[in-house]
Amino acid sequence: MRLLPHPPSQTTDPSVESTDRSVSERNSILARAPETGSDVHRERRRAVLETAARLICAKGYEATSVQDIADACGLTKAGLYYYIRSKEDLLREIQSYGMDIFEERVLLPVQAIADPLERLKVCMERNIHLVTEEWSKEVTIILHEHETLTGAARQQINARKKRYVDFLETAFAEAAREGRIRPVEPTVAAFSFLGMILWIYKWYRPGGRISADRLAAEMQDLFFGGLETSPAKRSRRQGPSKSTRKPAAQRSRKGASG
Amino acid sequence: MRLLPHPPSQTTDPSVESTDRSVSERNSILARAPETGSDVHRERRRAVLETAARLICAKGYEATSVQDIADACGLTKAGLYYYIRSKEDLLREIQSYGMDIFEERVLLPVQAIADPLERLKVCMERNIHLVTEEWSKEVTIILHEHETLTGAARQQINARKKRYVDFLETAFAEAAREGRIRPVEPTVAAFSFLGMILWIYKWYRPGGRISADRLAAEMQDLFFGGLETSPAKRSRRQGPSKSTRKPAAQRSRKGASG
Repeated sequence: MRLLPHPPSQTTDPSVESTDRSVSERNSILARAPETGSDVHRERRRAVLETAARLICAKGYEATSVQDIADACGLTKAGLYYYIRSKEDLLREIQSYGMDIFEERVLLPVQAIADPLERLKVCMERNIHLVTEEWSKEVTIILHEHETLTGAARQQINARKKRYVDFLETAFAEAAREGRIRPVEPTVAAFSFLGMILWIYKWYRPGGRISADRLAAEMQDLFFGGLETSPAKRSRRQGPSKSTRKPAAQRSRKGASG
Repeated sequence: MRLLPHPPSQTTDPSVESTDRSVSERNSILARAPETGSDVHRERRRAVLETAARLICAKGYEATSVQDIADACGLTKAGLYYYIRSKEDLLREIQSYGMDIFEERVLLPVQAIADPLERLKVCMERNIHLVTEEWSKEVTIILHEHETLTGAARQQINARKKRYVDFLETAFAEAAREGRIRPVEPTVAAFSFLGMILWIYKWYRPGGRISADRLAAEMQDLFFGGLETSPAKRSRRQGPSKSTRKPAAQRSRKGASG
């Protein structure tokens, strides 16, 4: 039984944010004596939820006991309950944590970008980086595959997911209205964008042949290369766009992130 | 408890193949006395596997008993075992059935298309129709979300999935080599193509605002509108391409299927 199926990642690309917490780092966070300081507690709770997500993905929710999670975290059961409410509540806590991270790293930083096309491009890049970081993979899987939540908890998570879809639909409609992209059906565009990104956890291996930066550049180019209008049409925009029609495969490894 | 969460679909679009078997139709197939004729047996086995897939998606694999499946099919347990080997084998049988249907409807019919770009476009359209047909939704979910298979069964399914990825990568590389599309990283292109299509079961509702034909046209346009080179560059090709850069939203509802 492989509880922690992924070895600590070797991030060779220095441009990748160093949020890729390795297993040993995570365990050392947990090994320290608990403190009530909120930052430390928050950090430890993250480590517990990421470890629980790995166990649940490897063994299944039913087969994962609170003792298994405590063992993997190097905690007693009592110590574990300092960070999670109950096993019943665990999927909700992991999904809620996954949405917190997503909003913090992807949605909030891009909302202020005035140009809707640039907003979408940076959003895609940030979301790709989030789903390719090894520590977040199982959290993402639980967020999108475990439909076991019911009642208010389910409604809450679905409302937060819907906020992202609404954000994308609005940005696509705005970009089309401003002549930044060709006309598209905003719902189809939003879910196509999401599908490309969220399918990544099914096939992508961090540390493999394709770096996260390369992946983000290729996907931006695939998706927006077709949507973007020619520079001549963009009468109201000043300055050249960062993204030309030159394929990413021929471009230098430069992300479009601001 | 909703065993059959989706009502029988009302296909308003006559161009959609009438493979969307409704629940009542499926049950009437099962209600007839078993025969050993292979076509009838095959048809009934399909109905059993589709019903089992619905139950497993609604209740979870562990919570679904053979008796539940027999009840939903209007069969005795003994009658059910005429169609399935065992509960243990059920996920494998559903996944294998899902791959059979996929190969029969999507992969085999397009392999003979000489032009790699047209091959990819028709393939996308056929795959979108498959995943938007109501009867196949739960089979698709089990095919892509239940990783519970082990050993030889898992290897077999993964090898068949890999054959599709290989097919797509080869077609993208060929299309780029022939100047039919801009240069792309074939693996990223293949999984982006797949992600857009396979994410559909997460959000698309048959019978809703967007028809399957419209969805296919929009996605073809989103994906290939950016990849396709301008007609001027296509020196070795004869005749105009079916897909122009005109957005699908402004086009007539005409699929690219042959």
